[in-house]
Amino acid sequence: MPLPALEKAKEEFLDFAGTGMSVLEISHRTKEWQTAIDQATDLVKDLLGVPSEYKILWLSGGASTQFYMVPLNLQVKDKPMEYVNTGGWSTKAIKEAKLYGEVKVIASSEEEKFSYIPSDVTFSDNTAFAHITGNNTLYGTEWQSIPNTSDDVPLVIDLSSNLMDQEMDVKNFGMIYAGAQKNLGPAGVTLVVVREDLINRVPEATPSMQKWSTHVGKGSMFNTPPVFPIYMCKLALEYLKGIGGVKTLEKINREKAKILYDVIDGSDGFYKGHARKDSRSLMNVTYTLASEDLETKCVAGGTERGLIGLKGHRSVGGMRASIYNAMPIEGVKALAEYLEEFKEQNQ
Amino acid sequence: MPLPALEKAKEEFLDFAGTGMSVLEISHRTKEWQTAIDQATDLVKDLLGVPSEYKILWLSGGASTQFYMVPLNLQVKDKPMEYVNTGGWSTKAIKEAKLYGEVKVIASSEEEKFSYIPSDVTFSDNTAFAHITGNNTLYGTEWQSIPNTSDDVPLVIDLSSNLMDQEMDVKNFGMIYAGAQKNLGPAGVTLVVVREDLINRVPEATPSMQKWSTHVGKGSMFNTPPVFPIYMCKLALEYLKGIGGVKTLEKINREKAKILYDVIDGSDGFYKGHARKDSRSLMNVTYTLASEDLETKCVAGGTERGLIGLKGHRSVGGMRASIYNAMPIEGVKALAEYLEEFKEQNQ
Repeated sequence: MPLPALEKAKEEFLDFAGTGMSVLEISHRTKEWQTAIDQATDLVKDLLGVPSEYKILWLSGGASTQFYMVPLNLQVKDKPMEYVNTGGWSTKAIKEAKLYGEVKVIASSEEEKFSYIPSDVTFSDNTAFAHITGNNTLYGTEWQSIPNTSDDVPLVIDLSSNLMDQEMDVKNFGMIYAGAQKNLGPAGVTLVVVREDLINRVPEATPSMQKWSTHVGKGSMFNTPPVFPIYMCKLALEYLKGIGGVKTLEKINREKAKILYDVIDGSDGFYKGHARKDSRSLMNVTYTLASEDLETKCVAGGTERGLIGLKGHRSVGGMRASIYNAMPIEGVKALAEYLEEFKEQNQ
Repeated sequence: MPLPALEKAKEEFLDFAGTGMSVLEISHRTKEWQTAIDQATDLVKDLLGVPSEYKILWLSGGASTQFYMVPLNLQVKDKPMEYVNTGGWSTKAIKEAKLYGEVKVIASSEEEKFSYIPSDVTFSDNTAFAHITGNNTLYGTEWQSIPNTSDDVPLVIDLSSNLMDQEMDVKNFGMIYAGAQKNLGPAGVTLVVVREDLINRVPEATPSMQKWSTHVGKGSMFNTPPVFPIYMCKLALEYLKGIGGVKTLEKINREKAKILYDVIDGSDGFYKGHARKDSRSLMNVTYTLASEDLETKCVAGGTERGLIGLKGHRSVGGMRASIYNAMPIEGVKALAEYLEEFKEQNQ
C-alpha cells in the first residue's frame, strides 16, 4: 500500500466522512458510503480508461473465486474454452474451468519451467472465451503484448499481479479480474471489469452470488460488500491519480525493473535470470544463484538489512524480488546495491 | 465495533506486530499473520465454547454466499432440505437452496408479517439438514429456544445478526454461519463453524472455493483471506473476552432490550411492538406509531439528537432500533429517554 493512503486512512479511522463513525462500522446503505464506492469506481474508470460499455464490480472471494466464475458466466453450449498456461495461477484457473466443460490449453510453457510467455498464440474462432494470466508471480514472466481474438471471442485476463503496472487498452478484453492485494489495495476485495454484453450468458439456475449479473444489477451491493477493503482501494487510487496515473506508474515500474535486470545481466552469470528476456515481468524479478546454499546465504543477508521476502516461492526455488506498484524505487535501489555487494564478496 | 478495538487498530495501523508494515499490506504467509488468525480462531472457540469436533473458518462472500454453500455442502441424494421461514433472510436462503433440490418449508410466520417465531417446529428424520435464521433483523424476532433435530439431521443456523448475543450450546448445531458486520467485526468476512463429519458430503466435482473442505484443509488460507477484517474480529473478540465473554454480554443485552421494550409496553399503545412478546429479539426492537406521519416525525427528531437509523427497513415500515453487541447501554438509554419525551409531546 502507498504510505500516503495508509496515513489518510489512519487519520480518519474513527471518523469517516464526518459521520462520527469509523468506516469499519458504517452501514453500506448510507449516502456517505455510496459516495465512496462511486468514487472508487470512477477512479478505476479514469485510471484504466474503461469504455462506457464496461461494468466495474467490487467482489469478494479473490481471483480464486473468478477462476470458477469466469467459465460459469461465459460458457457457451458445445463450445470449448481456450486457456494459455503460463504458470501456477493459470494452472489453477484451468483446473476450475474443467468443471464447466471442455478446456483446450492451446499453448503452455510448462515444459521449460514456465520461463517464457508463448509467442505463437492463436485462439480459434469457435471458443466460448480465451483466457490468459497477465503476469506470473512465481516465474517472473509477463505478457509483453496482448494476443488477438476474433470479435466473437472475449479475451479474459487475470491482472491480479500486474493491474495498472503499465498502460493497457481495456478494449482488448471482454473481462478483467484482479484480486486487490498485490497492486491495488488490501486483501479482501476483487476488481472485476466486464463488458456488459457478457453478463447474461450465465445459466438462469445459478446461485445469485455466482452471477456477475446479480452484482451488476445491484451496483456491487447485492449483499454487504467488503467495505473497508474497497475504501482502501479508493485511497490508493486517489494517490495513484495524484502522482500522474498509470502512465507515470509505468515509467517508474520500468525504471525499477531495469535496475534489477541490469544487476542480473551485468553479473557475468553470478545471478541467472529465470525468465527469458523477451518475457520478463515488471513486477516479479526471478533469478537463481550457483547453489542453494549461496541462495540461502543471500536471502539471510538481505533479511539482516531489512530486505525481506527475497526467497523464491517454494514451488520454484531460487530467488525473487516482488516490486509491485507500491514498492518505492528506493527499496529497489537498496536491493540492487545489496546484490552487487553480495556478488563482490561471494564470487 | 467496540471503540477500544478501533483504538487499538488505529494505534498499530502502520506497524503490525513489530513488522514495520501495516496489517493491510502484510503477507498472509508470514508467521505474524498466522499467529493473528490462530488467535482469532482460539477466541471464537473460547467465547462460543466450541467442542473439538468442530472446525472454524474465516471465509469471504457474506452470509449470502453461505445461502448456497449450505445446501451445496450438505445435500444428500433423494433427501429434501427443511427450512423454517421467519423473515427476509430465511426467504433468501430458501431461494438459493431450491437450486440444489427439494426444499420443504415446514413452518413459516409469513402470513402474520413474520411477527413471531413458530413454536411447533418439528423437523422430520428424513431431511438432509434443517435450517433456521437465529434472528430476524427486519421484524425484530429471535428464537428463544432452539428446536431439536434427530442425531442424523444437522441443524444449521444463520447467526449473522445475533452471534454471541446470548449463551448458546454449539452442540445443538451441525453448522453455524455469521456475516461479521453486525455483531462480530467489520464487513468482509464470514465466520463458519462446522462439525467435521459434515465437510465431506459435498460432490467431488465442485469448484474448490465452494467447498468447506477446501478451506478446512488449508486453515482458511486456500487463497488470500480477507486479512484486515479477520484482524478486526480478533481485536473485537479480545475486547469481548476482556469484559467477561458472552455471559456478560447476554446480561448487558437483556438490560438494553428491556429498557426499550419497557418503553413500548408502558406507552399505553402509543408505541406498538411489531414482534409478539414471546418472540422478541435482543438485537432489533421493532415498533410502529399511530401513523406514518408520526413515525417520520419521530425519526427526524431522533436524527436531530444524533439517534440515527431509527426508521424501519423499507420492506416493513415502522421503526426499528438495532442494538447489536457493540451498542453501549448509554445509547439505548438516550433513545428510551427520547421516546418517552416524544410520547409526552405527541400523544
